[in-house]
Amino acid sequence: MAVNLHPPARLEPVAGARWATADAAIKKPGRDDIAALVLPETATLAGVFTRNAFAAAPVRVAEAHLATGRARALLINSGNANAGTGAAGHDDAEACCARAGDALGLAADQVLPFSTGVIGERLPMDRLLPAIDGLGDDLREDAWLDAARAIMTTDTVPKGASRVLDIGDGRRITLTGIAKGSGMIRPDMATMLAFIATDADIAAEDLDAALRQASDASFNCISVDGDTSTNDACMACATGAGTALAASDASWPRFVAALTDVARELAQAIVRDGEGATHFITLAVTGAASDHEAREVAFTVAHSPLVKTACFAGDPNWGRILAAVGRAPVDDFVIDSVAIALDDVAIVADGEPRRDYAEADAAAVMARPEYTIAIDLGRGDRDATIWTSDLSYEYVRINAEYRS
Amino acid sequence: MAVNLHPPARLEPVAGARWATADAAIKKPGRDDIAALVLPETATLAGVFTRNAFAAAPVRVAEAHLATGRARALLINSGNANAGTGAAGHDDAEACCARAGDALGLAADQVLPFSTGVIGERLPMDRLLPAIDGLGDDLREDAWLDAARAIMTTDTVPKGASRVLDIGDGRRITLTGIAKGSGMIRPDMATMLAFIATDADIAAEDLDAALRQASDASFNCISVDGDTSTNDACMACATGAGTALAASDASWPRFVAALTDVARELAQAIVRDGEGATHFITLAVTGAASDHEAREVAFTVAHSPLVKTACFAGDPNWGRILAAVGRAPVDDFVIDSVAIALDDVAIVADGEPRRDYAEADAAAVMARPEYTIAIDLGRGDRDATIWTSDLSYEYVRINAEYRS
Repeated sequence: MAVNLHPPARLEPVAGARWATADAAIKKPGRDDIAALVLPETATLAGVFTRNAFAAAPVRVAEAHLATGRARALLINSGNANAGTGAAGHDDAEACCARAGDALGLAADQVLPFSTGVIGERLPMDRLLPAIDGLGDDLREDAWLDAARAIMTTDTVPKGASRVLDIGDGRRITLTGIAKGSGMIRPDMATMLAFIATDADIAAEDLDAALRQASDASFNCISVDGDTSTNDACMACATGAGTALAASDASWPRFVAALTDVARELAQAIVRDGEGATHFITLAVTGAASDHEAREVAFTVAHSPLVKTACFAGDPNWGRILAAVGRAPVDDFVIDSVAIALDDVAIVADGEPRRDYAEADAAAVMARPEYTIAIDLGRGDRDATIWTSDLSYEYVRINAEYRS
Repeated sequence: MAVNLHPPARLEPVAGARWATADAAIKKPGRDDIAALVLPETATLAGVFTRNAFAAAPVRVAEAHLATGRARALLINSGNANAGTGAAGHDDAEACCARAGDALGLAADQVLPFSTGVIGERLPMDRLLPAIDGLGDDLREDAWLDAARAIMTTDTVPKGASRVLDIGDGRRITLTGIAKGSGMIRPDMATMLAFIATDADIAAEDLDAALRQASDASFNCISVDGDTSTNDACMACATGAGTALAASDASWPRFVAALTDVARELAQAIVRDGEGATHFITLAVTGAASDHEAREVAFTVAHSPLVKTACFAGDPNWGRILAAVGRAPVDDFVIDSVAIALDDVAIVADGEPRRDYAEADAAAVMARPEYTIAIDLGRGDRDATIWTSDLSYEYVRINAEYRS
């Protein structure tokens, strides 16, 4: 059951960004499980991809096709990650691109493939290719929600977000994105995919810089560890149908902020829909000596199964938090200056439990569906904020039964 | 339910090492929850302690008392870790040592304290101190199993191991050890304590070297991560009642091997009794470029919740293993030379699934209570072997309900 997460009420169409979806019966028939985003000739694209050494075939192909600088379509399938499939998997990914190119009037290397689902199994090409053939027939600018549904795997809620930015002189820029992903605890495999489009006209290198900034402050701040699954990818597409925008413009920071905002809403939606999640938890680390140190402490706590099970139980076992902080890889760490709070309930100060701390107060915070674990290290002025979920029976069930 | 683990059939008495246990009703009355090991004047001691920055009060005190070079007794309590208790916790630990010293005719700093259990709560000194008073009344060399029971927390089986070493000329050396610990998944808090004694007469510095070698090949090879809880400790005691032995002796390597053997049996027992464990899994990484790299890969796989849930389900989802290997912090990692096998079932070769791989074969291996996941990196000649368990519903239940 997702934490405070509902399907998007409205996803703004983005001029020039057209979607189609289809049912390829990859795992079983009865739902659309492939989607294509087709972009106009004026479009630019940027992407960030997993750093897993065993990046899946579609990731390698997508990176290569993006590098040509003339990409025009994204082809996404759920149900099968085409990972760990060797040379045959690579050929399958290329074949999908070629077939989509035929359907869309593009060259094979203008199509970028994305796959998510079970790994180690070949794509069912016999069903996939015929389904791809029809993707050019009904491309629509208002099909974002259909696409959000088609890319779901263990997601329970489709994920999307829109922002409309007014940059003056009556000029507006629209940004809409969708994402999938619901693995939560350092999920080596629970792929995160995100696709964001804007109607602005932006040079590829500027778009690339904006996407890197936005993803560092969003997808790289959730404990899904965007850089570690075999298939993770986040794409930004600027259709060029609307207002021209450059990194040197005065309104550029506002565009980056809006892009970050969309990315953050999508990233948080992934956590809210975390497998088996019953709480949405913000980890706010302050007083660190460096950004790196702040992130290390935040992720060490976020990844601790004992903290996560305590959060599931609503048990203010702050000792587990303290212990996780204590084993974070921080040089010359001393306990004496550490403070911990749950929302507005101060628990630990100067490395010791506060005399005025009452466990009932902390238990009341942990009964909330979402709350903040604030950790001040008292050794500098750097900070980091990340988002995570708890560890429940349901997480085990989902991941123990995923393939059955 | 522990995996292939039973209470030790027999623990050999160690001449000069006498135990007493008592009921201090720390969590609740009705079982012995404190234990003392008292050693003769000839004894030497060595210890390895947690590297957690927030080491608990008893750890700090034990380290300081060990450093005096004249320690003679260990005082252990279960039910309360005396961690995160600040200056008051430190005073409590010292007070326990003083009281035990009174009972045993020793100075306070000749007693080393060890605590395990819930953290962030003060020790119940009103019940603890009177119970300590009686510890000198019934010290016995044959009370190892009683002690193993007294130090248990969420352990379901008392853990102990003995070896008798014949070093020629009719000389025999006895080693007996006990341990507690049953947290499994990178358990920030599930304290591991181990106490091993031998009747040999060994200089403190030699004993220290032997203990470090033994613990590196045992407790540091389980995913309990011995170096990260606030209270972890492993002590070796040589009573001096028996044969003299020095690091320069021809039989020294055999002594270190026997000590390692005892430590490894205890370490594996902790994994077998892992919280909620249903499988005992050996991770054998070979073909690494360095020892460090081999260990990093092994622990990355061992810590993966997705691998652990697949092991719980008996699902040969080897893609999760591949993906975990792929995100290990290894420089310039290429997939092409990686091989993976489950026991004798080869699954992946040259980075790809083998053509002759049949999932039913791997599923049969994973139905065994214990098996080996073998990962060959194909880039060097270094290796590492570690032991871990799976992630079950029961793990979540135990850790969500631990304090209630």
